[in-house]
Formats: sequence, C-alpha cells, structure tokens
Amino acid sequence: MNLEGEPVPFTGEDYAARMERVVVDAREAGLDGIVVMPGPDLVWLTGYQPPAITERLTMLTLAPDQPATLLVPILERADAETAAGAPGLTIEDWSDGMNPFETAARLLRSNGRFGISDSAWAMHLLGLQEALPNTRYRSLSQSLPMMRAVKDVEELSRLALAGAAADATFYEIVKVRFAGRRESDVAADVARLLRDFGHEQVDFTIVGSGPNGAHPHHEAGERVIQVGDAVVLDFGGLMHGYGSDTTRTVCVGESSGEQRDVHEIVRNAQQAAFDAVAPGVSCQEIDRVARALITEAGYGTEFVHRTGHGIGVTTHEPPYLVEGEEQELRPGMCFSIEPGIYLPGRFGVRIEDIVTVTETGGERFNNSDRTLRLVE
Amino acid sequence: MNLEGEPVPFTGEDYAARMERVVVDAREAGLDGIVVMPGPDLVWLTGYQPPAITERLTMLTLAPDQPATLLVPILERADAETAAGAPGLTIEDWSDGMNPFETAARLLRSNGRFGISDSAWAMHLLGLQEALPNTRYRSLSQSLPMMRAVKDVEELSRLALAGAAADATFYEIVKVRFAGRRESDVAADVARLLRDFGHEQVDFTIVGSGPNGAHPHHEAGERVIQVGDAVVLDFGGLMHGYGSDTTRTVCVGESSGEQRDVHEIVRNAQQAAFDAVAPGVSCQEIDRVARALITEAGYGTEFVHRTGHGIGVTTHEPPYLVEGEEQELRPGMCFSIEPGIYLPGRFGVRIEDIVTVTETGGERFNNSDRTLRLVE
Repeated sequence: MNLEGEPVPFTGEDYAARMERVVVDAREAGLDGIVVMPGPDLVWLTGYQPPAITERLTMLTLAPDQPATLLVPILERADAETAAGAPGLTIEDWSDGMNPFETAARLLRSNGRFGISDSAWAMHLLGLQEALPNTRYRSLSQSLPMMRAVKDVEELSRLALAGAAADATFYEIVKVRFAGRRESDVAADVARLLRDFGHEQVDFTIVGSGPNGAHPHHEAGERVIQVGDAVVLDFGGLMHGYGSDTTRTVCVGESSGEQRDVHEIVRNAQQAAFDAVAPGVSCQEIDRVARALITEAGYGTEFVHRTGHGIGVTTHEPPYLVEGEEQELRPGMCFSIEPGIYLPGRFGVRIEDIVTVTETGGERFNNSDRTLRLVE
Repeated sequence: MNLEGEPVPFTGEDYAARMERVVVDAREAGLDGIVVMPGPDLVWLTGYQPPAITERLTMLTLAPDQPATLLVPILERADAETAAGAPGLTIEDWSDGMNPFETAARLLRSNGRFGISDSAWAMHLLGLQEALPNTRYRSLSQSLPMMRAVKDVEELSRLALAGAAADATFYEIVKVRFAGRRESDVAADVARLLRDFGHEQVDFTIVGSGPNGAHPHHEAGERVIQVGDAVVLDFGGLMHGYGSDTTRTVCVGESSGEQRDVHEIVRNAQQAAFDAVAPGVSCQEIDRVARALITEAGYGTEFVHRTGHGIGVTTHEPPYLVEGEEQELRPGMCFSIEPGIYLPGRFGVRIEDIVTVTETGGERFNNSDRTLRLVE
C-alpha cells in the first residue's frame, strides 16, 4: 500500500478483470447478466464517467458468452473511447431520433434476469421493461450486493489516502475560531481544507452546532455558534476517486458534564463496534454491539440511525451495518462505524471512522483524536 | 416580469397550486397519480431538495382525494419540514431497519397507473413494483411530459435573468486571451464569470477548440488553443433555481472562408428555426426547419443532434425539439434552439439561444451577438 504521492492509475487490464469477475459472480447469483448505468458502478467497472448523467441512455451490459458492450449516445462516443476501460469494451452508439431501447434489447437475453445499477434512471428501466417484457430486474445492491464491497490493495491505498486527508482536515479545522461564526463559515473552511489536502470532490460538510447537532443530517446553516455548544463535524468527499467520511464532535470553549458523559458513551460504543470487526462477523452484529452499549446507558431511542455504511467509489454503498443485514464481513470490506446520540432541541454527538476488515480484525483509516476536544 | 434584483420567492401557496394542477392533469392523462422522487420534479412541486440523493427512499405521492404526502427518512424530516412547500404536505417518515416500501405502498392505489420521475432510482421503482405488483408506471416525461413545460410569469422572469447573466458572461469571455491558453483555462474563466453574474450553480462550460469543437459534447480539455481555431463556447447553470444555456462560436485571431461559410449556415438555420416558433407549431417542425437549411447547404449528415431541449429547473427537460415529437408549442414553453455543424478532425460550429413561446411567436432570452466574432 503506497501512502505517498499519486496512486497508480487503474489500467484497461484492471477494468477487464473486474468485468470478468462480475460476470462470474452474476452467474453464481442466478443472474443472466448485469445492466450498468452511469454512476459509481460504471466508473468502477470501466473508468468511464459520461460528461453528464441525462435522459440520454448510456448502458453497459455484462453477460456470459458475449462481449462487454457499452451503448452510448453518438455525441458521447468520443468521450467513451478515451475511458481507461475502453480497450475491454465493444462500444455501440445511437443517435437522437432513434429508440435506444431497440438497440439495448439486442444486448439482453429476452427472458433474462438482470441486476441493474441502483441509481439507474427509472425511465431507462421502464424502457427496458417495455422493450423486453419478459426480462426481470433486481437492483445490484440486492442482487449482487458485494460487487464492489471487497476492495483490492490499490483501492485500499486510495481509501487510506482519503482518510489521512480527512484526518489532516480535522486537525486544521479545530484550530479555527468557532464561537461567533456561522456554521456555514466553518463548513466553507472544511471544504477548502479537504481540497487543500487533495480531495477533488467535496460531498458533505456537516457542521451541526447546539440543537442543530441533534438532527443527524443537518448540513450547515446560518446559526451562529455559541460558547458551550457541542458541534458535530462530519465531512468527506472523493480523493483519487475514492471516498472519505469522518465525524468528530467538539465543544466550544467549555463542555458540560452531560456533554462529556454522552460523548464518552458514544466513544465507547464506537470503540466496541470497531473491536468487534473481524472476518465472518455479520454486519448486523456490529450494529448490535454499538447499539447495546448506548441502550444500556439509557440512550437507545436517541440513536436513530444504523451504525454504518460501506464506502468506495461512493460514500454510501453496501455493506450496511444495520439490523437485518446478515452479510458476513470479509477482508477488504470498508465501511463507516458511526454511532451517535441525538437529544432534540439540545445537542448531538457522533463519532465516525472508516474501517477496513483485515485477516484478523479491523483497521481504521481515520485516526484523528477521538477524545472530546475544546475549540475556540 | 421583473428583471432587476432578486425574484420573489415561491410560496407555500405557489407550490400547493402546482400540486393541485398536476393532480388534475394526471387524472386527465389517465393516471391514478404521480410518484415523485428527489430531483427537479420534487424541487418544482415542493421546493424541497434533500441534503443528498441517496439509496434512502424519499417519495412524494400526488393523487386525487388524498393529501399530498411526502415520505422521508426520519433523519431528513427536519429538513423536509423547512421546505417552502411543506405547508401543503403531509410528511411521513421511516427509520433505518424498516422497509420503506411497506409505508410507500399504503400511499398508492394497489392496481394504479402512475407517472414516476424520470430520474427516480431504479432500486426504488423496483421496490414499488415488488411491494405493489399490480401497479404500473410510466416515466413522467412520457406520461405527463408537459408537467413543467409551460412556465408561469415568475419562472419566465428567472429564466430571463439567467439568460441575461449568460449573455453578460459571453461579452466578458470574448475579452480574455484564447490563443496559447488551454481550453480548461478559458472554461475556468467562464465558470467564474457565470458565478460573478449571479449563477449559484455552473453545470457545463464547454470550450471546444479546433478539432475538439467537432465533438458536440466535448467539455474542456488540455488542448492549447491556436490562432485560426474555431472555438465552440457552450455554457450554463442555475440562477435563482432556473437554467441558462447558450452557445456562441468564435474564431481566434483570424477566420477562414470555410469557417465563415459554415458559421453563416448555422446562423441562418438558427434564425429560421427561431422565426418558426409560434403557438400550435409542433416541436419536430422546429427541428425540421433548422435541419432543412443545413441539409440544403450540404451539411445534413454533420448536424448530428436534435435542435433543442426544454429548460426550467433543469437544463435538459421536455419539450425536445426532435423528429418524432409532435407536441405542439404553447405560450410559456422554454427551450434551446441550437443547430450545429461538426466537421470531424477539423472544427465545429453551434449557435444556441433559450427561447420562450409567446402568444404570437417566440422571444429569445439570449441576445448576445450572433455574428462570427474574432477573439485574441
């Protein structure tokens, strides 16, 4: 794993190997193939990202005994041909005024079962269902949920770099002034720092101060941060195409006994969940471990979300650490562990690291200080 | 129409009126209702934009004889409640670990026909189809294509403001140096200017110099612009929530006879298509008018795309000016008129304005100089 400098770019062979593996996995999962639309699956399988995701159909089909075929609007053919994965693809195109689903239909077995990208547009799925009424579809996160979940060594290297950049961002942001500034001002600082430390894309910069911290998905608003506030800082984005996502909760100027108590409960829950990570343990077990500690401490109903989500070329993907998810952890999986406690009208606390499963346990990609820090 | 200052914000009543009208339109179109997922339809109907579009289901249902209901992840309930359209909504929520489609199913007639947002995630459509196997769906752009197409006076005002800002951007960008700089440098200037003139979001900044201009969807790359290049400049984004999209083609330092000839053909085609705009004319007729002129001039096969697309809260939406689209133009519709000629390996020319249909004809929201300009 190379933590310095630029990662080695993925090659046409890397993408071809991914596509071959997915065809095998799809067959084992009882599918006749998969249908991939623009977004993270397509980027991961081919390195191709269309100039924009629009109503014009772009579709990759992978199935046994046929070439991997990318159907693109003719306008975007030249872009597609320059993708790193293009050498492993047969590229077909369609023009405005044609019905692209007629071409698409030739690429799919007419009574087949297919996995389809979660974020494929409904209008495109409906177009396929109409053109081929006897085909059946299931979202890839249900039909082939682990397709992107186990990362190879080059992917782990990118996630480690992104995590280190997020940690560096945390160590810088705690030096800025919080009291008297708006949440949105601190959020702008976070975004700038993520970019300064190498992120090409900032996806979220949550600054939840005081009562806003009690809304887990509050972004950053116009509230002026006060002395005595707890502030949830949750941020991430993409670096070299792979995600970061970390959360720390700080207090401004001073902390109350209750803030310290709640923070300690969350920290212990996060640590216990991390300690439980190992190959063969189920996803829901990690959620249960975190939830048990918080429930024992009397805050079970204030932990209102799952414990974590996978991360890779997106910041939200399988595996999900949630009750009901029986998937077993495997070495190379990467996900967040992020328990929280939310006290409506008052404050919230969340602590989050990205963790990867090793042969023997877990390893964190976020290692910044998890104790309750005071900021100015 | 107010062209100065900030537009009047849309109110809860505005959104309620839109929702009521859509229910009526849906019934007239033979639908039992519509299913709206995050994206432009939801923004237009409710003013609500979730913090991020993710695998967690957010769904608005509109149907006769039931309240407009927005189902959201509980994490995002507080955000949803602050949306301008929230007063007209019943908000329901679901929590991690629940199956949101069980709740969603209660909001839909079990054997109903529904329009669904084009860009709804396939995984969510599949979830609905599984929970309610007797429901049927059609994309909103097919089942209710004109839902957002006719703009009211406040929407026209916003589109006019966005167009004026794009024109101002053009008049500034032709003052910068082109020769010897990278396309990406000029594109960065364009993006900065769009923001300076009031855009909150930049969606595309195409700078297609020389042979790159022959790829209609080429963005901006590392090519160094040369004296004698034709350069396609196509840019736009959102301002006050509504789109801009304009194209001009310039020449660097000097122009060849062929460049001038091709430019003149495109300019005449664009003008003729604009002159053809009037209530009652079909969308495909506008395309035919532009295409006829270019074909007569011998470049029919080099005009490789449709003549235009609608614009509103997105920069690509119905109505589409394309062969086969028989929809008649109505006052208040807004779309691009953007014929082009693309000579592979050499250069391209495109000229684009946003046009609205008036009671008697058309009106342009882009009015910057359409003659062939030389830049430095």
